[in-house]
Amino acid sequence: MTDALHPLDAALAFTAGADGALAGRTSPAYWNMVGPFGGITAAQLLKAALDHPARIGEPVAQTVNFCAPIAEGDFVIRVKEVRSGRSVQHFYAELVQGETIAASATMVFARRSPTWGHHTAAMPEAPPPADVPVLTKKPPLAWLGAYEFRYVSGLPIMASEAFPEPQSAKSLIWVADQPPRPLDHVALASLCDVFIVRVFQVRGLRTPAGTVSMTSYFHASTEELARQGTRPLLARVDSTRFGDQFHDQQAELWSDEGKLLATTTQVVWFRE
Amino acid sequence: MTDALHPLDAALAFTAGADGALAGRTSPAYWNMVGPFGGITAAQLLKAALDHPARIGEPVAQTVNFCAPIAEGDFVIRVKEVRSGRSVQHFYAELVQGETIAASATMVFARRSPTWGHHTAAMPEAPPPADVPVLTKKPPLAWLGAYEFRYVSGLPIMASEAFPEPQSAKSLIWVADQPPRPLDHVALASLCDVFIVRVFQVRGLRTPAGTVSMTSYFHASTEELARQGTRPLLARVDSTRFGDQFHDQQAELWSDEGKLLATTTQVVWFRE
Repeated sequence: MTDALHPLDAALAFTAGADGALAGRTSPAYWNMVGPFGGITAAQLLKAALDHPARIGEPVAQTVNFCAPIAEGDFVIRVKEVRSGRSVQHFYAELVQGETIAASATMVFARRSPTWGHHTAAMPEAPPPADVPVLTKKPPLAWLGAYEFRYVSGLPIMASEAFPEPQSAKSLIWVADQPPRPLDHVALASLCDVFIVRVFQVRGLRTPAGTVSMTSYFHASTEELARQGTRPLLARVDSTRFGDQFHDQQAELWSDEGKLLATTTQVVWFRE
Repeated sequence: MTDALHPLDAALAFTAGADGALAGRTSPAYWNMVGPFGGITAAQLLKAALDHPARIGEPVAQTVNFCAPIAEGDFVIRVKEVRSGRSVQHFYAELVQGETIAASATMVFARRSPTWGHHTAAMPEAPPPADVPVLTKKPPLAWLGAYEFRYVSGLPIMASEAFPEPQSAKSLIWVADQPPRPLDHVALASLCDVFIVRVFQVRGLRTPAGTVSMTSYFHASTEELARQGTRPLLARVDSTRFGDQFHDQQAELWSDEGKLLATTTQVVWFRE
């Protein structure tokens, strides 16, 4: 470890303009095939709202819409305070390059206070992360290097032609930031997009595809995320219906103590 | 049946202003306790985008944020075209009363064309709707009269004090517009919010609560929805984690032919 910023924090370093707009730059550490990994865009939009001078409380919900390809280089994020109640607050944000709104987001923040609580979901069964080998053979995409993957099941296998029968859309993975970084909401927002596009896995074929919209709910406080520290999260993912250029995806991110930290869903565009 | 507009269509009748803003009015037929049923607000925001002169294609995704109570009376919806690609289009909309943005939404539309398809989810087992009695004893809330409910399981029971142990958050329901109305995307958007708030069901207690944000993905085309006609949909709902004033909810809406028409998720605020 050096004193250098973690790549995630470097990606979230903005310069505030006089009009409140935040100037940022795409991160080479989270580059995907033809643009940034969607998770880093989600984290950037969340950080921009966290940095808003009127922001109260902690992130509860985020929807990110991927509207246009984000080009390598500079961007500006503009955050609009839509409505602030006593304890719940709504923002709308746009990530802009030139004249193009490349991404938009709505976000809900809240000053959360203790209430009755109940945890109905059961953590998926999985061997401890130390017993699951780290994935070392990865396609040469920068963002795949920004995470450590330990596949319990559902490792995507890409072939030169589609499988004769569709494979399962499910995967179960221990995943962590690489290099290690203590968990917080911006890291969690990015982790919500950490799954290989399901249509690739199901078909065994890489075709043009990309997330169009992603919604994440954050169930845990900053303190609870901090307790997780740098240890891997257990991530489960599945999809229900593919067709006519789109498919859905549902996922859960669990602490290693068995608490559901985030639930997330997305709709993915694909061709062919 | 008369020639009068169905209450849903009456709720979606807007007057376009010179600036493109749409003037509407809250619907008494979909009134909830202290404001409109959230589903009708979702339908109104979706209809406003459908009415946008630049709109292409069909609804794919919608996120609605419930920012402030909507008062009985007039409102204005402003729809912004965020980005239009060749086949995918992004909108942002606000529902405004006076100076207050009471609801916001992002919506994705697309000109969908045939691709490889796959349906991984299995329809929940349920007796046919004709074998499940229609719920007749309902709390006196107008919107509950706008739907016909046939509970297969998980009928919420409200008590004067909380159950000693939390009940299941699951429900399985045959549900249809009442009076009957052929299914389309605006009806489906509203049906995505048709579940009694899960915290009421789990605790058996009605406390202040309300949906803060809801995301729905529409998997079916207009033609597929039209084939469903006026027959009930099978709706399944569950939640995973409750605490610190919020809980999530995940739901599916199925055609009676076993196709998943929509997946939807929401985050609900509650007190105590």
